[in-house]
Amino acid sequence: MDRLSLNQISTKRWSVAEAVAGCAEAGVGWIGLWRDKVAETGLDRTARLVADHGLRVSSLCRGGFFTGFLPDGSLVDGIAETRTAIDEAVALGTDVLVLVVGGVVDNDLAGSRQRVADAVGELAPYARERGVRLGLEPLHPMQCAERSVLSTVDQAWTIAREHPADAVGVIVDEFHVWWDPDIEASIAQAAGRIVGFHVCDQLVPLTDTLLGRALPGDGPIDHRHLRACVEAAGYTGPIEVEVFNAELWARPGADALAAVVNAYRNHVV
Amino acid sequence: MDRLSLNQISTKRWSVAEAVAGCAEAGVGWIGLWRDKVAETGLDRTARLVADHGLRVSSLCRGGFFTGFLPDGSLVDGIAETRTAIDEAVALGTDVLVLVVGGVVDNDLAGSRQRVADAVGELAPYARERGVRLGLEPLHPMQCAERSVLSTVDQAWTIAREHPADAVGVIVDEFHVWWDPDIEASIAQAAGRIVGFHVCDQLVPLTDTLLGRALPGDGPIDHRHLRACVEAAGYTGPIEVEVFNAELWARPGADALAAVVNAYRNHVV
Repeated sequence: MDRLSLNQISTKRWSVAEAVAGCAEAGVGWIGLWRDKVAETGLDRTARLVADHGLRVSSLCRGGFFTGFLPDGSLVDGIAETRTAIDEAVALGTDVLVLVVGGVVDNDLAGSRQRVADAVGELAPYARERGVRLGLEPLHPMQCAERSVLSTVDQAWTIAREHPADAVGVIVDEFHVWWDPDIEASIAQAAGRIVGFHVCDQLVPLTDTLLGRALPGDGPIDHRHLRACVEAAGYTGPIEVEVFNAELWARPGADALAAVVNAYRNHVV
Repeated sequence: MDRLSLNQISTKRWSVAEAVAGCAEAGVGWIGLWRDKVAETGLDRTARLVADHGLRVSSLCRGGFFTGFLPDGSLVDGIAETRTAIDEAVALGTDVLVLVVGGVVDNDLAGSRQRVADAVGELAPYARERGVRLGLEPLHPMQCAERSVLSTVDQAWTIAREHPADAVGVIVDEFHVWWDPDIEASIAQAAGRIVGFHVCDQLVPLTDTLLGRALPGDGPIDHRHLRACVEAAGYTGPIEVEVFNAELWARPGADALAAVVNAYRNHVV
């Protein structure tokens, strides 16, 4: 239980204040925060709530979108936004900022990937100075077009390795990478660079590209196998349970958290 | 135009007889057939219709499901079904049978992949004797759980290379593999093994895991780039336009075929 972290998207109905109190009540010592939820509560107030409840923040989600647009197509300055997110991570006392790097522009996949690599190069020194590691999270290929031109752990590592290990790392999220025929080798290769491990299962068949996720144990993913892989690669940090699922979100927060804890105990550790 | 093939799923409303007549009318010389449509028309009658209209059959879709179940969860003997499909390919005068290899059983991805490799080994001699090449088609990772534990061209090639090139090859379908960071290298590696090239774009965002496809030009895929890759790898055979799209399917068959021809001319060649 000492490694379990509630990624707060799993209890989407809860505010930061409710999630923090809920974790303390349930004996969950870590929380993964989302910037939109933090903004609703206020940055300083969030930091105080976390500290007052004796929690630690496993990561802040998210920076990125370096190819210049959000999933809804609106324009964004991803580098400026990510600088702000780095500052917020510092204020919240976490050393990991999750990056969703952005989708394809002008049907130019190679060029879009280069933009991502360039942006990471520009931001890495800023993050490192502030004690924050940029966590490159490969997303499922079905989100390549509009969310992430990084689809595999190998791709993320290939960018990360160009920078100091205390500046840029890789997030392994099961939902996004479980299908990868090279996942074991890619995780082993990323030893020393893994800055987060997110667990989540998949609905079969996928009914929705965003919400088609499930609690660990409710899908085809072998969680203990993937946990063993990241541990063999030296990652012994917090394990976030991060589930986008409409049915889970409809439950009262405390029920959702209890389901998260049960799934973690029965299928992950 | 001499390489364009209508994959008949793109004109789903049409029977075999209508599709064959439509192709002849539109000057399309190739057709990719589906077994369910062939069964509705009859195998011998289909073969006669194709011959009478001077068409050639680029491929028959599909065999596979070697891990023992169909996408709806029902059980199937994939090896026996594929033997039948090989015989049907012979009767229809095509030398390519598309394989959808099957999904994950018992949360054992590695074991499921081994079952596929074993089944291909069992079937390859049978296919070769009959002059049919088994076309291993990697499907999009979002279909890994219930349809295909082969997600990349590299995986498909790794199985194919264990067998004679006139027995087992690889199908490159853009929709399924465009996002792959290794796609260029994987296609080059598969030189001499590519037995089909299917073009199709992707809706952004993906609204549906099966129907979220689009005509070439209506999504993020660079069709000329991928066509150049397969041609550099020696593939100069028919190019199937294979689009699962509810709006396209709602159109009268002749309109759908005209849209296929236009998309091919404007975005593929």
